[in-house]
Amino acid sequence: MSLMGQMMNMPLMISSLLKHAARHNGDVEIVSKRVEGDIHRTTWGEVELRSRKLAQALQRLGCKPGDRIGTLAWNGYRHLELYYGTSGAEFVCHTINPRLFPQQIAWIVNDAQDSVLCVDLNLLPLVEKLIEHVPSVKAVIAMVGREHMPAQSGIPNLLCYEDLLAAEDGNYDWPVFDENTAASICYTSGTTGNPKGAVYSHRSTILHTYASAIPEAINLGATGVLMPVVPMFHVNAWGTPYSAALIGCKLVLPGHHLDGESLYNLMEQEKVTISAGVPTIWLGLLNHVKSKDLKFSTFKTTVIGGSACPPAMIRTFENDYNVEVIHAWGMTELSPIGTLSRLKSKHLELPIESRQKILEKQGKAIYGIDMRIVDHDGQELPWDGKASGDLEVRGHWVINSYFNVDVSPLHDGWFPTGDVATIDPDGYMQITDRSKDVIKSGGEWISSIDLENVAMGHPAVHEAAAIAAFHPKWDERPLLVVVKRPGAEVTRDELLAFYDGKIPKWQVPDDVVFVDEIPHTATGKIYKLKLRETFASHKLPTA
Amino acid sequence: MSLMGQMMNMPLMISSLLKHAARHNGDVEIVSKRVEGDIHRTTWGEVELRSRKLAQALQRLGCKPGDRIGTLAWNGYRHLELYYGTSGAEFVCHTINPRLFPQQIAWIVNDAQDSVLCVDLNLLPLVEKLIEHVPSVKAVIAMVGREHMPAQSGIPNLLCYEDLLAAEDGNYDWPVFDENTAASICYTSGTTGNPKGAVYSHRSTILHTYASAIPEAINLGATGVLMPVVPMFHVNAWGTPYSAALIGCKLVLPGHHLDGESLYNLMEQEKVTISAGVPTIWLGLLNHVKSKDLKFSTFKTTVIGGSACPPAMIRTFENDYNVEVIHAWGMTELSPIGTLSRLKSKHLELPIESRQKILEKQGKAIYGIDMRIVDHDGQELPWDGKASGDLEVRGHWVINSYFNVDVSPLHDGWFPTGDVATIDPDGYMQITDRSKDVIKSGGEWISSIDLENVAMGHPAVHEAAAIAAFHPKWDERPLLVVVKRPGAEVTRDELLAFYDGKIPKWQVPDDVVFVDEIPHTATGKIYKLKLRETFASHKLPTA
Repeated sequence: MSLMGQMMNMPLMISSLLKHAARHNGDVEIVSKRVEGDIHRTTWGEVELRSRKLAQALQRLGCKPGDRIGTLAWNGYRHLELYYGTSGAEFVCHTINPRLFPQQIAWIVNDAQDSVLCVDLNLLPLVEKLIEHVPSVKAVIAMVGREHMPAQSGIPNLLCYEDLLAAEDGNYDWPVFDENTAASICYTSGTTGNPKGAVYSHRSTILHTYASAIPEAINLGATGVLMPVVPMFHVNAWGTPYSAALIGCKLVLPGHHLDGESLYNLMEQEKVTISAGVPTIWLGLLNHVKSKDLKFSTFKTTVIGGSACPPAMIRTFENDYNVEVIHAWGMTELSPIGTLSRLKSKHLELPIESRQKILEKQGKAIYGIDMRIVDHDGQELPWDGKASGDLEVRGHWVINSYFNVDVSPLHDGWFPTGDVATIDPDGYMQITDRSKDVIKSGGEWISSIDLENVAMGHPAVHEAAAIAAFHPKWDERPLLVVVKRPGAEVTRDELLAFYDGKIPKWQVPDDVVFVDEIPHTATGKIYKLKLRETFASHKLPTA
Repeated sequence: MSLMGQMMNMPLMISSLLKHAARHNGDVEIVSKRVEGDIHRTTWGEVELRSRKLAQALQRLGCKPGDRIGTLAWNGYRHLELYYGTSGAEFVCHTINPRLFPQQIAWIVNDAQDSVLCVDLNLLPLVEKLIEHVPSVKAVIAMVGREHMPAQSGIPNLLCYEDLLAAEDGNYDWPVFDENTAASICYTSGTTGNPKGAVYSHRSTILHTYASAIPEAINLGATGVLMPVVPMFHVNAWGTPYSAALIGCKLVLPGHHLDGESLYNLMEQEKVTISAGVPTIWLGLLNHVKSKDLKFSTFKTTVIGGSACPPAMIRTFENDYNVEVIHAWGMTELSPIGTLSRLKSKHLELPIESRQKILEKQGKAIYGIDMRIVDHDGQELPWDGKASGDLEVRGHWVINSYFNVDVSPLHDGWFPTGDVATIDPDGYMQITDRSKDVIKSGGEWISSIDLENVAMGHPAVHEAAAIAAFHPKWDERPLLVVVKRPGAEVTRDELLAFYDGKIPKWQVPDDVVFVDEIPHTATGKIYKLKLRETFASHKLPTA
């Protein structure tokens, strides 16, 4: 018979992160660029007090444990208070992507059965369009002070966030309950089929927070200044609102202006040292910095994920701006962090080109996540850096099932990610494609990401997407869709010649089309499904 | 009704740390200075395989889940395999301090009811002395290869570690079980009363491992080289055998020669970047380095705990050797880490003297630990840096009860540490004394640590201890016991004059006695109880 440990058994509670931050780093700043237009400054101590008042206010509105509180908001301190004020009080924080279409948002709100919606000022018009279609919503709270409340609104009985808080005394003790209780819900982007809700627990969130803060992961220190550019409605901003509290670092929340100039100015002004976001955002920032011949004074590290980071971007950040890139991979279903790319001791003496080659991969699983690649029969494939298979994961912060979906998404106890990847003998995983984006040319697979990475290395290319186009003999052949850099010129043949020696000849795209814009999903990824529809009848010159 | 999360619910298992290390950092080295005399090299991959064989061997010996496996061993790879091979297989790793007296060890083995003892070569004579008195022990394993097995031994049927492993195939899957199961036991040093066993669980160990690795704590990175000098029989070497696996860094295990010269040579040879140990050990290292006019080539950080680190040592490490000191505080009952001292952003611009003043404190609680100070009525005291009270803690890796002890050690849900401390408004805790070592002079308290720290700042003082001596008027007055640095001279009056302006006049010791050696406990702390006995009849000149 086994022996039991004799340790205090305290549940892992999200509220304890905020209490810890307030107690040990109560005077550390949270700086927000507000929708209202100004820069707002508060502290962890103040956010903790206001989160308690928020919990009281939601209770006064009749919210009960388990109630879903929807948010339609950018990165800002009130959104941070909502993270803690909801989950800490046993409600569930449901962050909603405001870049979705109103009917998608309504679908999600109905699926989650949100009882309250909390909305940033400039997103109220969006809510006006859908409020009639979301009967579960009993109250809408405008995340503003009284002075910014709209004079009139199509939303009946619109409540004012600051009024609600002002009515409370903050005399509230964070409750302690089962650590497996739901803390937050985030929906997948649903580019295929309906969006699906991942329901994170307090336990999974705390474990993810610990794991993401360690030196092998984001390496977040208390003397750093963190600006999450990844939205707080996108998988909890990769957990940064939690890890920042654990560490007690200064947090800079950039609001809704995510263009290169706005980001650069905020980073310089607030002495940001570390940031996190998708490649598209960094394209904008780098273009701004390049075009104005600027330098970063304090920016040292950026975590890039959401979609594969083009190698050219890693090199630009590191070689031209001395900013370390941490290439990461994750998913909504993984809370989201799965892997990050960091060098090992034995790599430190390698030439820079070899080191960057390693950092181009999505990296090693952080402790708490297991990964494997399997073939089409579900058989595990070797970690040899060559075998490419379906990536599957399991771990403490991986979903077991989707909200309101009876069918288990798991395969043999593992979550199939939908990504295709290789893993090398050192444990570095590299995504070669989304399984639905892979280009199947006569039975052989061509990685659309490989093709895009080469194109993105061409100085005239701003953005590139490789998709499968119909071919009568090979079934599918690659078509490259390109947005040129402003003022730059390059021809179809020059671009195709650029592939020479970089990839096997048979993988070179059959054609190139130039477009003004490549469509993106609401989470900033290239919208391949849309592109494939657009070019469904494209006739390849090789066909 | 609350909503439950929908995440995979996998138990937190210690075996997963080792599996992670083997899978992602399988070729990273574990270097051990063996009792047999040589340097031994293995890897995380090899240690994982051998730990599986060890689990098989223990099962073959008839060990069952819950069985306690005692270890009497120094820091080395076989001890590391025992950590994982026992707890991973649902046995309980019971590390025993070989520096205790044989009768104390026998008492502890009987209390834990160890079924197997695993013993380093040079500790077998110790076991010979006590084996007749520990009837629960069914097997003793000598941690050596066949070639080093003693020709004859007073231990009946002594088994050979390497023979046992060689008989197994390693075809073993680490079992998965309740995360609250006991993983290891460590006894307090028992300087007052009998030693008491702290029973760590898999859950508490994993949470401690995550928390101790983050940048705000030990900040352990994969490119670092860690040498725990703190023994693996002393609160799991402060968790480093676990955190090193989580991170996958190179581990250097120094065996039983912990003198300054041995440590220095090993650190240089193996390019150690970070270490951890008690002040006494570092005194020896610094004396060696100073006397030979040496420098450290790679050593960058040292974690110092176990007892209060004298400020002079922090300054010597930082100013003379450019080694960052992380002053830490913990206890056997805390797995052990409670607090560490690291600067905040706002401190970075302070003059060096002010920064070092902050780092002299034991620091801030790491996330997962709550602390408070209370007065004699149990009332919480303010965090003002002045109020001094009994330090109490609670958290995920704090004991709830002692092994085989029915009486709860807790006070109102908190664990009373027996330390007296202040906490400042920034959350930095400073131990002023052990409550039993405080000197009570006419109703006022004098911190023995303060008096020692001043004395340790005198260039002629090697070590100093302040204890209470009997005084007919004041009940107790401070007596300073001093070991002079070899070749250095200082008189009683010179030392007392050295206190001028450094502490209030009424706290200056009433007398100084010079001794050749100050007694230490088996865990390297100054043995104050013994000193008080020695000087029980010391007549103060002021009496």
